[in-house]
Amino acid sequence: MTTERHESRTRLLDAALDVFRARGYAATRVDDICAAAGLTKGSFFHHFKTKDELAIAAAGRWTEVTGALFRDADYNRPDDPLDRLLGYLDFRKSLLRGSLAEYTCLLGTLVQEVYDTNPPIRMACEASLSSHVAMLARDIEAARLLYAPDASWSSEGLALHIQAVIQGSFVIAKAHHGSGPAADSFDHLKRYVAGLFGRTVR
Amino acid sequence: MTTERHESRTRLLDAALDVFRARGYAATRVDDICAAAGLTKGSFFHHFKTKDELAIAAAGRWTEVTGALFRDADYNRPDDPLDRLLGYLDFRKSLLRGSLAEYTCLLGTLVQEVYDTNPPIRMACEASLSSHVAMLARDIEAARLLYAPDASWSSEGLALHIQAVIQGSFVIAKAHHGSGPAADSFDHLKRYVAGLFGRTVR
Repeated sequence: MTTERHESRTRLLDAALDVFRARGYAATRVDDICAAAGLTKGSFFHHFKTKDELAIAAAGRWTEVTGALFRDADYNRPDDPLDRLLGYLDFRKSLLRGSLAEYTCLLGTLVQEVYDTNPPIRMACEASLSSHVAMLARDIEAARLLYAPDASWSSEGLALHIQAVIQGSFVIAKAHHGSGPAADSFDHLKRYVAGLFGRTVR
Repeated sequence: MTTERHESRTRLLDAALDVFRARGYAATRVDDICAAAGLTKGSFFHHFKTKDELAIAAAGRWTEVTGALFRDADYNRPDDPLDRLLGYLDFRKSLLRGSLAEYTCLLGTLVQEVYDTNPPIRMACEASLSSHVAMLARDIEAARLLYAPDASWSSEGLALHIQAVIQGSFVIAKAHHGSGPAADSFDHLKRYVAGLFGRTVR
């Protein structure tokens, strides 16, 4: 692929991340994506056969973009895995800014709609979610071995629970059209997670 | 309204609860609702001008149906408000059975899609959610006064957090196409809530 073609594909994918999160999946037309990307329908259909194919590729793009965001974030610096885990929660809370479409999750938006009607998109979302859960579970497991070796919960289960709270806080924020309740939920979540490792936060 | 007309309206609303949860909002056609209700389009347009009007009425129907479900449930029987609150969480977990469309939430499904594009539907969902939160916050407040009078969190905030965890567990269940991770999240939630009141669960 030439650089120019590669760039137009990435522009379409990045437009999809924004437009799907703002308007939902079924309500988004290919025209909306092209307008947001500043590209023609001809360009769109050069890269993607259908809107479904775009959505599946967009889940992969989400893995790339968010993967880099979390990998490069400062919360990874401490040597102590529990500090990294609690830092991850602070970092997630700090991302609650701008518009709802900017800080909510592509994967949650897509699976909420198409979990039953479009298995390929659901599976692409599950794969992206699982890669994030696996990243988080590594720090949780390291912290568990150090601070809670007899815990009855699993590291992967706690990582999934953390994602559930984050996804649910986005749903509540959407219902209230503001991030206040989501920020409160992040505080409850941090208090719970810290407590599992015997640490107290306010 | 005659009884027959009232019945057909309720059948359309109950069909909407099922079909919106199974297919999402934008992807659902009026034809799908009519087919699920076993009624004609003529009947539909006798009761509702548009699909949007149906959705707003469906949020009200959701308040009625789930309001009765929770009001009549056995978890309300104990005199101790903390027993009622923990019983509520057990009851919510017990509802995780059948298909995803059966046990997931109409409100979360609708707001995830239309939070920004359809304010009247978002507001109808917010009103339904708020009535449930207010019901739960009454038991939380009674338990807080008894067992955690110096708590730094508010009863309404904790009730909203509980809803966030429930909504998020549905999103994760949809991503995995199964209720296993949601059940684990309910266990984490119960452990957290019990701990806030100084009670330990496994």
